[in-house]
Amino acid sequence: MLRLFHSRGSCALASHIALEEAGADYQVVRVDLAAGEQTKPEYLAINPKGRVPALVTDRGVLTETPAILAFVAQSHREARLAPLDDPFAFARAQAFNSYLASTVHVAHSHGRRGSRWADDAAAIAEMKRKVPQTMAACFAQIEADLPDDQPWVLGADYSICDPYLFTIGAWLAGDEVEIAQFPKVFRHFQRMNDRPAVRKVLAREAA
Amino acid sequence: MLRLFHSRGSCALASHIALEEAGADYQVVRVDLAAGEQTKPEYLAINPKGRVPALVTDRGVLTETPAILAFVAQSHREARLAPLDDPFAFARAQAFNSYLASTVHVAHSHGRRGSRWADDAAAIAEMKRKVPQTMAACFAQIEADLPDDQPWVLGADYSICDPYLFTIGAWLAGDEVEIAQFPKVFRHFQRMNDRPAVRKVLAREAA
Repeated sequence: MLRLFHSRGSCALASHIALEEAGADYQVVRVDLAAGEQTKPEYLAINPKGRVPALVTDRGVLTETPAILAFVAQSHREARLAPLDDPFAFARAQAFNSYLASTVHVAHSHGRRGSRWADDAAAIAEMKRKVPQTMAACFAQIEADLPDDQPWVLGADYSICDPYLFTIGAWLAGDEVEIAQFPKVFRHFQRMNDRPAVRKVLAREAA
Repeated sequence: MLRLFHSRGSCALASHIALEEAGADYQVVRVDLAAGEQTKPEYLAINPKGRVPALVTDRGVLTETPAILAFVAQSHREARLAPLDDPFAFARAQAFNSYLASTVHVAHSHGRRGSRWADDAAAIAEMKRKVPQTMAACFAQIEADLPDDQPWVLGADYSICDPYLFTIGAWLAGDEVEIAQFPKVFRHFQRMNDRPAVRKVLAREAA
Protein backbone atom coordinates (compact mmCIF):
# COMPACT_ATOMS: atom_id res chain seq x y z
CA MET A 1 0.00 0.00 0.00
CA LEU A 2 1.17 3.51 -0.83
CA ARG A 3 1.56 5.94 2.08
CA LEU A 4 1.42 9.68 1.44
CA PHE A 5 3.04 11.89 4.05
CA HIS A 6 1.28 15.23 3.84
CA SER A 7 0.34 18.27 5.89
CA ARG A 8 -2.82 20.32 5.92
CA GLY A 9 -2.80 23.20 3.48
CA SER A 10 0.45 22.17 1.83
CA CYS A 11 1.17 21.32 -1.80
CA ALA A 12 0.77 17.64 -0.82
CA LEU A 13 -2.95 18.18 -1.44
CA ALA A 14 -2.28 17.79 -5.17
CA SER A 15 -0.81 14.30 -4.70
CA HIS A 16 -3.58 13.42 -2.26
CA ILE A 17 -6.28 14.29 -4.79
CA ALA A 18 -4.43 12.49 -7.59
CA LEU A 19 -4.20 9.29 -5.52
CA GLU A 20 -7.92 9.50 -4.78
CA GLU A 21 -8.82 10.17 -8.42
CA ALA A 22 -6.62 7.26 -9.50
CA GLY A 23 -8.45 4.85 -7.22
CA ALA A 24 -5.07 4.02 -5.67
CA ASP A 25 -4.61 1.72 -2.71
CA TYR A 26 -3.17 4.30 -0.32
CA GLN A 27 -3.32 5.85 3.10
CA VAL A 28 -2.31 9.29 4.30
CA VAL A 29 -0.08 10.16 7.23
CA ARG A 30 -0.23 13.71 8.54
CA VAL A 31 3.01 15.54 9.33
CA ASP A 32 2.52 18.42 11.77
CA LEU A 33 4.66 21.19 10.31
CA ALA A 34 3.66 23.66 13.05
CA ALA A 35 5.10 21.23 15.61
CA GLY A 36 8.23 20.79 13.51
CA GLU A 37 7.68 17.08 12.88
CA GLN A 38 9.29 17.41 9.46
CA THR A 39 12.63 18.21 11.12
CA LYS A 40 12.63 15.22 13.48
CA PRO A 41 14.76 12.14 12.85
CA GLU A 42 11.73 9.90 12.28
CA TYR A 43 10.58 12.01 9.35
CA LEU A 44 14.05 12.83 8.01
CA ALA A 45 14.57 9.07 7.70
CA ILE A 46 11.67 9.11 5.22
CA ASN A 47 12.50 12.37 3.48
CA PRO A 48 15.92 13.86 4.28
CA LYS A 49 14.79 17.11 2.67
CA GLY A 50 12.33 17.63 5.55
CA ARG A 51 9.45 18.56 3.27
CA VAL A 52 6.08 17.18 2.26
CA PRO A 53 4.85 15.41 0.24
CA ALA A 54 6.68 12.11 0.42
CA LEU A 55 5.15 8.98 -1.08
CA VAL A 56 6.34 5.72 0.43
CA THR A 57 6.11 2.82 -2.01
CA ASP A 58 7.22 -0.79 -1.68
CA ARG A 59 10.31 0.12 -3.70
CA GLY A 60 11.28 3.27 -1.83
CA VAL A 61 10.31 6.87 -1.23
CA LEU A 62 9.35 9.41 -3.88
CA THR A 63 9.44 13.18 -3.33
CA GLU A 64 8.69 16.33 -5.36
CA THR A 65 5.11 16.94 -6.45
CA PRO A 66 5.63 16.84 -10.24
CA ALA A 67 7.41 13.47 -9.93
CA ILE A 68 4.76 12.01 -7.62
CA LEU A 69 1.93 13.19 -9.88
CA ALA A 70 3.48 11.62 -12.98
CA PHE A 71 4.13 8.43 -10.99
CA VAL A 72 0.49 8.21 -9.90
CA ALA A 73 -0.62 8.60 -13.52
CA GLN A 74 1.90 6.09 -14.89
CA SER A 75 1.26 3.47 -12.23
CA HIS A 76 -2.55 3.75 -12.60
CA ARG A 77 -2.88 3.89 -16.36
CA GLU A 78 -6.53 2.88 -16.29
CA ALA A 79 -7.36 6.16 -14.52
CA ARG A 80 -6.15 8.12 -17.59
CA LEU A 81 -4.69 10.97 -15.57
CA ALA A 82 -2.12 12.02 -18.19
CA PRO A 83 -1.52 11.59 -21.94
CA LEU A 84 1.01 8.83 -21.29
CA ASP A 85 1.40 7.55 -24.84
CA ASP A 86 2.16 10.90 -26.45
CA PRO A 87 5.57 12.33 -25.47
CA PHE A 88 4.70 15.83 -26.64
CA ALA A 89 1.35 15.98 -24.84
CA PHE A 90 2.93 14.46 -21.73
CA ALA A 91 5.68 17.10 -21.88
CA ARG A 92 3.07 19.88 -22.04
CA ALA A 93 1.51 18.47 -18.88
CA GLN A 94 4.90 18.24 -17.22
CA ALA A 95 5.83 21.77 -18.26
CA PHE A 96 2.67 23.06 -16.62
CA ASN A 97 3.39 21.21 -13.39
CA SER A 98 7.06 22.18 -13.43
CA TYR A 99 6.10 25.85 -13.74
CA LEU A 100 3.80 25.49 -10.73
CA ALA A 101 6.60 23.88 -8.71
CA SER A 102 9.57 26.01 -9.64
CA THR A 103 7.98 29.42 -10.22
CA VAL A 104 4.50 29.69 -8.68
CA HIS A 105 5.01 27.67 -5.49
CA VAL A 106 8.35 29.43 -5.05
CA ALA A 107 6.71 32.85 -5.42
CA HIS A 108 4.18 31.90 -2.74
CA SER A 109 6.87 30.59 -0.39
CA HIS A 110 8.49 34.02 -0.20
CA GLY A 111 5.55 35.10 1.97
CA ARG A 112 5.92 32.30 4.53
CA ARG A 113 9.36 30.78 4.18
CA GLY A 114 11.50 33.79 3.37
CA SER A 115 14.13 32.58 5.82
CA ARG A 116 15.11 29.99 3.25
CA TRP A 117 16.71 32.75 1.20
CA ALA A 118 17.60 35.52 3.65
CA ASP A 119 18.33 35.90 7.36
CA ASP A 120 17.65 39.59 7.83
CA ALA A 121 14.14 40.37 9.12
CA ALA A 122 13.76 43.45 6.92
CA ALA A 123 14.66 41.46 3.82
CA ILE A 124 12.17 38.74 4.75
CA ALA A 125 9.47 41.36 5.23
CA GLU A 126 10.33 42.91 1.87
CA MET A 127 9.96 39.52 0.15
CA LYS A 128 6.61 39.02 1.82
CA ARG A 129 5.46 42.42 0.62
CA LYS A 130 6.01 41.48 -3.03
CA VAL A 131 4.11 38.16 -2.94
CA PRO A 132 0.73 39.54 -4.10
CA GLN A 133 2.45 41.05 -7.12
CA THR A 134 4.43 37.94 -8.09
CA MET A 135 1.51 35.57 -7.53
CA ALA A 136 -0.79 37.76 -9.61
CA ALA A 137 1.80 37.81 -12.40
CA CYS A 138 2.07 34.00 -12.29
CA PHE A 139 -1.68 33.55 -12.44
CA ALA A 140 -2.00 36.06 -15.29
CA GLN A 141 0.39 33.77 -17.18
CA ILE A 142 -1.65 30.70 -16.25
CA GLU A 143 -4.90 32.43 -17.22
CA ALA A 144 -3.45 33.16 -20.66
CA ASP A 145 -2.32 29.54 -21.02
CA LEU A 146 -5.57 27.84 -20.02
CA PRO A 147 -7.73 26.71 -22.93
CA ASP A 148 -10.89 28.63 -23.72
CA ASP A 149 -14.21 26.84 -23.36
CA GLN A 150 -12.68 23.59 -22.15
CA PRO A 151 -12.98 22.36 -18.59
CA TRP A 152 -9.46 21.23 -17.68
CA VAL A 153 -5.88 22.43 -17.89
CA LEU A 154 -5.08 20.14 -20.81
CA GLY A 155 -8.45 20.68 -22.50
CA ALA A 156 -11.21 18.10 -22.54
CA ASP A 157 -9.43 15.54 -20.37
CA TYR A 158 -8.92 15.79 -16.62
CA SER A 159 -5.26 15.20 -15.66
CA ILE A 160 -2.61 15.46 -12.95
CA CYS A 161 -2.31 19.17 -13.79
CA ASP A 162 -5.77 19.93 -12.43
CA PRO A 163 -5.30 19.06 -8.74
CA TYR A 164 -1.96 20.86 -8.71
CA LEU A 165 -3.45 24.09 -10.13
CA PHE A 166 -6.35 23.78 -7.69
CA THR A 167 -3.95 23.34 -4.76
CA ILE A 168 -1.93 26.45 -5.52
CA GLY A 169 -5.01 28.42 -6.54
CA ALA A 170 -6.35 27.82 -3.03
CA TRP A 171 -3.41 29.84 -1.68
CA LEU A 172 -4.32 33.01 -3.57
CA ALA A 173 -6.70 34.39 -0.95
CA GLY A 174 -4.00 34.10 1.74
CA ASP A 175 -1.61 35.82 -0.65
CA GLU A 176 -4.08 38.70 -1.04
CA VAL A 177 -4.81 37.95 -4.67
CA GLU A 178 -8.44 37.83 -5.80
CA ILE A 179 -8.86 34.61 -7.79
CA ALA A 180 -12.00 35.89 -9.57
CA GLN A 181 -9.89 38.37 -11.56
CA PHE A 182 -8.71 35.29 -13.54
CA PRO A 183 -11.99 33.97 -14.97
CA LYS A 184 -10.70 30.69 -16.41
CA VAL A 185 -8.72 29.91 -13.25
CA PHE A 186 -11.74 30.76 -11.13
CA ARG A 187 -14.14 28.55 -13.08
CA HIS A 188 -11.56 25.74 -12.94
CA PHE A 189 -11.31 26.18 -9.18
CA GLN A 190 -15.08 25.92 -8.78
CA ARG A 191 -15.23 22.90 -11.09
CA MET A 192 -12.56 21.17 -9.00
CA ASN A 193 -14.47 21.93 -5.80
CA ASP A 194 -17.44 20.05 -7.25
CA ARG A 195 -15.59 16.80 -7.93
CA PRO A 196 -16.47 14.02 -5.49
CA ALA A 197 -12.82 12.98 -5.07
CA VAL A 198 -11.85 16.56 -4.20
CA ARG A 199 -14.67 16.91 -1.68
CA LYS A 200 -13.66 13.65 -0.06
CA VAL A 201 -10.00 14.62 0.20
CA LEU A 202 -10.75 18.12 1.49
CA ALA A 203 -13.01 16.65 4.17
CA ARG A 204 -10.30 14.17 5.17
CA GLU A 205 -7.65 16.91 5.40
CA ALA A 206 -9.97 19.14 7.45
CA ALA A 207 -10.84 16.39 9.92
CA MET B 1 13.74 19.73 -36.88
CA LEU B 2 13.79 20.68 -33.20
CA ARG B 3 15.04 24.17 -32.33
CA LEU B 4 16.40 24.88 -28.87
CA PHE B 5 16.37 28.51 -27.77
CA HIS B 6 19.15 28.86 -25.22
CA SER B 7 21.60 31.32 -23.75
CA ARG B 8 25.20 30.91 -22.77
CA GLY B 9 25.70 29.80 -19.16
CA SER B 10 22.00 29.21 -18.53
CA CYS B 11 20.18 26.06 -17.47
CA ALA B 12 19.40 25.47 -21.15
CA LEU B 13 22.80 23.76 -21.27
CA ALA B 14 21.15 20.66 -19.78
CA SER B 15 18.65 20.38 -22.63
CA HIS B 16 21.40 21.15 -25.16
CA ILE B 17 23.55 18.28 -23.89
CA ALA B 18 20.56 15.93 -23.74
CA LEU B 19 19.65 16.67 -27.37
CA GLU B 20 23.24 16.01 -28.41
CA GLU B 21 23.44 12.77 -26.41
CA ALA B 22 20.11 11.64 -27.89
CA GLY B 23 21.41 12.08 -31.43
CA ALA B 24 18.45 14.37 -32.05
CA ASP B 25 17.88 16.30 -35.26
CA TYR B 26 18.11 19.80 -33.78
CA GLN B 27 19.64 23.22 -34.04
CA VAL B 28 20.27 25.83 -31.37
CA VAL B 29 19.28 29.49 -31.44
CA ARG B 30 21.05 31.80 -29.01
CA VAL B 31 19.00 34.32 -27.03
CA ASP B 32 21.10 37.25 -25.80
CA LEU B 33 19.86 37.76 -22.22
CA ALA B 34 22.31 40.61 -21.59
CA ALA B 35 20.74 42.49 -24.50
CA GLY B 36 17.26 41.69 -23.18
CA GLU B 37 16.23 39.65 -26.22
CA GLN B 38 14.08 37.42 -23.98
CA THR B 39 11.76 40.37 -23.27
CA LYS B 40 11.23 41.35 -26.93
CA PRO B 41 8.01 40.52 -28.80
CA GLU B 42 9.78 38.12 -31.16
CA TYR B 43 10.89 35.90 -28.29
CA LEU B 44 7.76 36.33 -26.17
CA ALA B 45 5.82 34.94 -29.13
CA ILE B 46 7.85 31.75 -28.66
CA ASN B 47 7.92 31.69 -24.87
CA PRO B 48 5.60 34.17 -23.13
CA LYS B 49 7.46 33.50 -19.87
CA GLY B 50 10.53 35.22 -21.33
CA ARG B 51 12.93 32.55 -20.17
CA VAL B 52 15.19 29.95 -21.69
CA PRO B 53 15.14 27.11 -22.59
CA ALA B 54 12.33 26.80 -25.09
CA LEU B 55 12.19 23.84 -27.45
CA VAL B 56 10.28 24.44 -30.66
CA THR B 57 8.83 21.25 -32.10
CA ASP B 58 6.58 20.68 -35.11
CA ARG B 59 3.64 20.41 -32.68
CA GLY B 60 4.37 23.47 -30.56
CA VAL B 61 6.74 24.90 -27.99
CA LEU B 62 7.92 23.14 -24.82
CA THR B 63 9.35 24.97 -21.82
CA GLU B 64 10.72 24.04 -18.36
CA THR B 65 13.91 22.00 -18.19
CA PRO B 66 12.51 18.89 -16.44
CA ALA B 67 9.73 18.64 -19.04
CA ILE B 68 12.11 19.14 -21.97
CA LEU B 69 14.56 16.57 -20.61
CA ALA B 70 11.85 13.91 -20.20
CA PHE B 71 10.55 14.75 -23.68
CA VAL B 72 14.00 14.27 -25.22
CA ALA B 73 14.29 10.89 -23.51
CA GLN B 74 10.76 9.76 -24.45
CA SER B 75 11.00 10.88 -28.05
CA HIS B 76 14.43 9.27 -28.56
CA ARG B 77 13.90 5.95 -26.82
CA GLU B 78 16.81 4.30 -28.60
CA ALA B 79 19.22 6.66 -26.78
CA ARG B 80 18.13 5.16 -23.43
CA LEU B 81 18.35 8.44 -21.52
CA ALA B 82 15.81 7.49 -18.82
CA PRO B 83 14.22 4.34 -17.36
CA LEU B 84 11.08 4.87 -19.43
CA ASP B 85 9.42 1.51 -18.83
CA ASP B 86 9.60 1.58 -15.03
CA PRO B 87 7.30 4.20 -13.45
CA PHE B 88 9.09 4.09 -10.10
CA ALA B 89 12.58 4.45 -11.59
CA PHE B 90 11.34 7.18 -13.93
CA ALA B 91 9.80 9.00 -10.95
CA ARG B 92 13.14 8.88 -9.12
CA ALA B 93 14.78 10.51 -12.11
CA GLN B 94 12.03 13.11 -12.26
CA ALA B 95 12.26 13.81 -8.53
CA PHE B 96 15.98 14.49 -8.91
CA ASN B 97 15.39 16.89 -11.79
CA SER B 98 12.45 18.56 -10.07
CA TYR B 99 14.59 19.21 -7.00
CA LEU B 100 17.24 20.82 -9.22
CA ALA B 101 14.60 23.03 -10.85
CA SER B 102 12.50 24.08 -7.89
CA THR B 103 15.07 24.20 -5.07
CA VAL B 104 18.66 24.32 -6.36
CA HIS B 105 18.21 26.54 -9.42
CA VAL B 106 15.95 28.78 -7.31
CA ALA B 107 18.61 29.06 -4.58
CA HIS B 108 21.16 30.09 -7.22
CA SER B 109 18.81 32.64 -8.78
CA HIS B 110 18.68 34.61 -5.54
CA GLY B 111 22.23 35.76 -6.28
CA ARG B 112 21.47 37.12 -9.75
CA ARG B 113 17.74 37.56 -10.10
CA GLY B 114 16.74 38.71 -6.63
CA SER B 115 14.51 41.38 -8.17
CA ARG B 116 12.07 38.61 -8.99
CA TRP B 117 11.17 38.41 -5.31
CA ALA B 118 11.96 41.83 -3.82
CA ASP B 119 12.33 45.42 -5.01
CA ASP B 120 14.43 46.87 -2.20
CA ALA B 121 18.16 46.95 -2.95
CA ALA B 122 19.13 45.99 0.60
CA ALA B 123 16.84 42.95 0.50
CA ILE B 124 18.28 41.89 -2.84
CA ALA B 125 21.81 42.22 -1.44
CA GLU B 126 20.79 40.18 1.59
CA MET B 127 19.47 37.38 -0.62
CA LYS B 128 22.71 37.40 -2.59
CA ARG B 129 24.71 37.14 0.61
CA LYS B 130 23.01 33.88 1.57
CA VAL B 131 23.52 32.09 -1.77
CA PRO B 132 26.79 30.32 -0.87
CA GLN B 133 25.09 28.87 2.23
CA THR B 134 21.93 27.68 0.45
CA MET B 135 23.79 26.27 -2.53
CA ALA B 136 26.20 24.39 -0.25
CA ALA B 137 23.23 22.95 1.66
CA CYS B 138 21.60 21.82 -1.59
CA PHE B 139 24.77 20.15 -2.79
CA ALA B 140 25.32 18.45 0.58
CA GLN B 141 21.86 16.91 0.01
CA ILE B 142 22.78 15.88 -3.53
CA GLU B 143 26.11 14.45 -2.37
CA ALA B 144 24.26 12.28 0.15
CA ASP B 145 21.82 11.11 -2.52
CA LEU B 146 24.35 10.18 -5.21
CA PRO B 147 25.17 6.48 -5.38
CA ASP B 148 28.54 5.31 -4.12
CA ASP B 149 30.94 3.78 -6.60
CA GLN B 150 28.66 4.25 -9.57
CA PRO B 151 29.31 6.76 -12.31
CA TRP B 152 25.95 8.45 -12.87
CA VAL B 153 23.12 10.03 -10.89
CA LEU B 154 20.86 7.00 -11.34
CA GLY B 155 23.70 4.50 -10.91
CA ALA B 156 25.20 2.53 -13.78
CA ASP B 157 23.16 4.16 -16.54
CA TYR B 158 23.67 7.65 -17.89
CA SER B 159 20.40 9.62 -17.98
CA ILE B 160 18.76 13.03 -18.35
CA CYS B 161 19.67 13.72 -14.70
CA ASP B 162 23.37 13.88 -15.49
CA PRO B 163 23.51 16.91 -17.80
CA TYR B 164 21.19 18.81 -15.46
CA LEU B 165 23.38 18.18 -12.40
CA PHE B 166 26.44 19.08 -14.46
CA THR B 167 24.83 22.33 -15.59
CA ILE B 168 23.98 23.53 -12.10
CA GLY B 169 27.24 22.20 -10.66
CA ALA B 170 29.05 24.49 -13.08
CA TRP B 171 27.47 27.46 -11.29
CA LEU B 172 29.02 26.61 -7.91
CA ALA B 173 32.29 28.46 -8.47
CA GLY B 174 30.39 31.67 -9.29
CA ASP B 175 28.32 31.10 -6.16
CA GLU B 176 31.51 30.87 -4.09
CA VAL B 177 31.03 27.20 -3.27
CA GLU B 178 34.00 24.87 -3.72
CA ILE B 179 32.72 21.87 -5.68
CA ALA B 180 35.57 19.62 -4.51
CA GLN B 181 34.11 19.54 -0.99
CA PHE B 182 31.46 17.21 -2.47
CA PRO B 183 33.57 14.30 -3.75
CA LYS B 184 30.85 12.40 -5.60
CA VAL B 185 29.53 15.57 -7.23
CA PHE B 186 33.07 16.58 -8.17
CA ARG B 187 33.94 13.24 -9.77
CA HIS B 188 30.62 13.33 -11.63
CA PHE B 189 31.44 16.82 -12.89
CA GLN B 190 34.83 15.66 -14.19
CA ARG B 191 33.29 12.57 -15.78
CA MET B 192 30.75 14.74 -17.57
CA ASN B 193 33.50 17.06 -18.81
CA ASP B 194 35.13 14.06 -20.48
CA ARG B 195 32.10 13.02 -22.53
CA PRO B 196 32.43 13.81 -26.24
CA ALA B 197 28.87 15.16 -26.44
CA VAL B 198 29.53 17.52 -23.55
CA ARG B 199 32.79 18.78 -25.05
CA LYS B 200 31.07 19.39 -28.35
CA VAL B 201 28.20 21.31 -26.76
CA LEU B 202 30.47 23.39 -24.52
CA ALA B 203 32.60 24.33 -27.53
CA ARG B 204 29.48 25.32 -29.47
CA GLU B 205 28.17 27.47 -26.61
CA ALA B 206 31.56 29.16 -26.16
CA ALA B 207 31.91 29.98 -29.87
